[in-house]
Amino acid sequence: MAAAAAAAAGGARRAPVLSPGAMNPAVRRVEYAVRGPIAARAAELERELGQGVPKPFTEVIKANIGDAHAMGQQPITFLRQVVALCLCPELQGHPSVPADAEARARRLLAACGGGSAGAYSASPGLQPVREDVARHIERRDGGVPARAEDIFLSAGASDAIVTMLKLLVWGSGPSRTGVLIPIPQYPLYSAALAELDAVSLGYLLNEERRWALDVAELRRALSEGRRRCCPRVLCIINPGNPTGQVQSRECIEDVIRFAFEEKLFLMADEVYQDNVYAEGSTFHSFKKVLMEMGPPYADSVELASFHSISKGFMGECGLRGGYMEVVNLHPEVKAQLAKLVSVRLCPPVPGQLLLDAVVDPPRPGEPSYERFQAEKQAVLSALAERARLTEEILNRTPGISCNPVQGAMYAFPRIQIPARALAAAKEKEQAPDMFFCMRLLEETGICVVPGSGFGQKEGTYHFRMTILPPTEKLKLLLQKLSDFYTKFVREFS
Amino acid sequence: MAAAAAAAAGGARRAPVLSPGAMNPAVRRVEYAVRGPIAARAAELERELGQGVPKPFTEVIKANIGDAHAMGQQPITFLRQVVALCLCPELQGHPSVPADAEARARRLLAACGGGSAGAYSASPGLQPVREDVARHIERRDGGVPARAEDIFLSAGASDAIVTMLKLLVWGSGPSRTGVLIPIPQYPLYSAALAELDAVSLGYLLNEERRWALDVAELRRALSEGRRRCCPRVLCIINPGNPTGQVQSRECIEDVIRFAFEEKLFLMADEVYQDNVYAEGSTFHSFKKVLMEMGPPYADSVELASFHSISKGFMGECGLRGGYMEVVNLHPEVKAQLAKLVSVRLCPPVPGQLLLDAVVDPPRPGEPSYERFQAEKQAVLSALAERARLTEEILNRTPGISCNPVQGAMYAFPRIQIPARALAAAKEKEQAPDMFFCMRLLEETGICVVPGSGFGQKEGTYHFRMTILPPTEKLKLLLQKLSDFYTKFVREFS
Repeated sequence: MAAAAAAAAGGARRAPVLSPGAMNPAVRRVEYAVRGPIAARAAELERELGQGVPKPFTEVIKANIGDAHAMGQQPITFLRQVVALCLCPELQGHPSVPADAEARARRLLAACGGGSAGAYSASPGLQPVREDVARHIERRDGGVPARAEDIFLSAGASDAIVTMLKLLVWGSGPSRTGVLIPIPQYPLYSAALAELDAVSLGYLLNEERRWALDVAELRRALSEGRRRCCPRVLCIINPGNPTGQVQSRECIEDVIRFAFEEKLFLMADEVYQDNVYAEGSTFHSFKKVLMEMGPPYADSVELASFHSISKGFMGECGLRGGYMEVVNLHPEVKAQLAKLVSVRLCPPVPGQLLLDAVVDPPRPGEPSYERFQAEKQAVLSALAERARLTEEILNRTPGISCNPVQGAMYAFPRIQIPARALAAAKEKEQAPDMFFCMRLLEETGICVVPGSGFGQKEGTYHFRMTILPPTEKLKLLLQKLSDFYTKFVREFS
Repeated sequence: MAAAAAAAAGGARRAPVLSPGAMNPAVRRVEYAVRGPIAARAAELERELGQGVPKPFTEVIKANIGDAHAMGQQPITFLRQVVALCLCPELQGHPSVPADAEARARRLLAACGGGSAGAYSASPGLQPVREDVARHIERRDGGVPARAEDIFLSAGASDAIVTMLKLLVWGSGPSRTGVLIPIPQYPLYSAALAELDAVSLGYLLNEERRWALDVAELRRALSEGRRRCCPRVLCIINPGNPTGQVQSRECIEDVIRFAFEEKLFLMADEVYQDNVYAEGSTFHSFKKVLMEMGPPYADSVELASFHSISKGFMGECGLRGGYMEVVNLHPEVKAQLAKLVSVRLCPPVPGQLLLDAVVDPPRPGEPSYERFQAEKQAVLSALAERARLTEEILNRTPGISCNPVQGAMYAFPRIQIPARALAAAKEKEQAPDMFFCMRLLEETGICVVPGSGFGQKEGTYHFRMTILPPTEKLKLLLQKLSDFYTKFVREFS
């Protein structure tokens, strides 16, 4: 045989089947800045520090990713008790576990196959969790009805967003699906759209008006998009990531009218709905506003909205839990969605269990109530303070300007970059803000993500940083960042 | 505005953007029989039983899906203790938790961001878990080296399989990727390939030779495939799902030579590697055989192999954990893989933690050793007994013939279907084995999956059933099934 001959001949290696030139080009086009070169270099620096390599800093601070626990936020006790007891029921009776956590674990386990969290759940999630999510949405939305059958649990919001896009993206040439996404955006969207080979249609948020969404700009992006594809979807991130704005009810109504008129499917990424800090800012869900607008909007605009256990006050990123609610979805399409999620069997059950404890928290009078409330409020008020601090300290630095962090977990300040730094970046074939962020990382150990990874108006430069480090550390970080920026400007002036 | 006018006019509803005729056609083509119409009807019947609707049975037995815990298998104590303590460290010190479980939880938490399982892990997984997996593979493979950097943790094997296929599937027309898959196959493959718009190229396993894999048949399928696409990938399921065969070392060597000669990327689905029951059957990993074959195979055949915490003796489906090992992957492709998995942030951390306890179990002398071994052996020997029983009882029934269940968790018996039943099925527009399985479900409450959902040689009919129900229940189930089949044949003769 040919192979035996080759082996006998001393082993002619075969060229790879899968090579950079012969692989799915859509995957090559995917970019995800939050875990891109900056994060990779930060991890390297951490290893080097661990090996005793001298650096101008003693610690790498990862302000690149919305990962609250990694920054020292403590888990909410009740949530973890419930999941731990579900996983290991023999730990019941521990003196530190209150009766309501035990009761909740028992109730949830009764809904699991064979009474075990190790059984697959139904593909859209455990039924009682879907019901608890629906009731939670009704409370959130002042009584606007929600139905368990419209709730699909997921492995974090990313999972559900990609699933929904899979249904929506099709066609080729001029009928290829175009998807309107904000600029700046969370790069999951551009990455997923690159992978699915859809057309990203960016609409610019208005930095001068605190990152507000203008329908006029939506209209511009849409008509520009119509010349090259078939725009079918409008994605909104509210509260904004990376921009931190919280949309007004009026703005949401305008967006819904626009989607109605222009025949767009609405995807509302609302994972930061519990993270609203600024006075005068209130979270309005797209679902509630849509329903309250009445027909023809309420009974025909298709909406999928997304939530997650990774953000809010819980910050349980590692458990990969979340849900989407679908509204006005064609029944046959809903059946297709149900089929599609069944191929991956089910969302991770521990994330589903924790989600249940989040959407149906301890009530007044129950043993866990006070501790739960105290822990939750401590997290949220610390975040509110850090949001204020971040804006304040950044704006004190000439050359940096930062909109108020009304919500979410990030500041997205604009930085002036001197002409000589632009030239130096060009020489290194780096985006100017990548050049800045890399220098910042190498000299201070502070890891933030260049604005170019999220998209920004041409000629402007930004970075995204989280507000998650503990308050004292955050103050230090902001001061170091400010000092470094001043030095950077001086160096390149 | 137009919309305002419409609203004022009494609300002309908008046609849906996303409709059965205007959605991704690739999603429409996806089929996943394991959770298809049979499973949906079983769930309905369960609800009806719960509401007191009279049925000819008192219980629905779901032998359609490899979900051990749902069938009553108990979780392995040590595994759960480790994960529960990671999630809720304040439960340390409980009298039922041994010191080694506590120590393991502490070691794993030290590797989590902020010491919390709620932090994102690195996208390929927690580093110490990847290292423990690599050492486990070395022990499994008699010392053949494995490297942590080649291990990518995942949300179950399905997740990793689809990720790998995403890199491999590209091109259009005659250069579209063709993927060789066994027939019968686990329908994740056909579903993923439909979604990715690749060409499925079935190669038939040889039922007469206990579902053996013939290289001659591989060659036939390949050359047939080359006429319409570009075959780039060969998928193997060993031990087989749904067919239960365990491949010989010789067969694996032949397959590797074939992949070398024909320039195919090998994907080895080895999730049932711990589930081998038949005397004389031994699991050989593709990795080990490939490495032991030496150059030019060992240094050039690209291989991705897959494992999971959902099967084996642990059966932890709900936690969604698993890993893949890649061998001879081009370094730039590996970087692309790392980038691709980063978009979804990380695999569920509880599943990673449990995986660690699986691949690095208690050692002799440690407090959990004896209980762990006893629980593990109890599960595996019960499965071995059920495998034997299933084959035996099915083969007693005239018209049913079943190959030995050498491994995995399923029997895939062949059934003769009388001509009048074929006609009745045709009238209902059902596949003949779907017709049989639906009747079986309605009359006995036994839920199994028609062979047509896995693919089968034309003119043959099968079903897949799990061997997971507790032994006494399984005997009863098999007897009922046998009686029903006999009655069915009589009815249609």
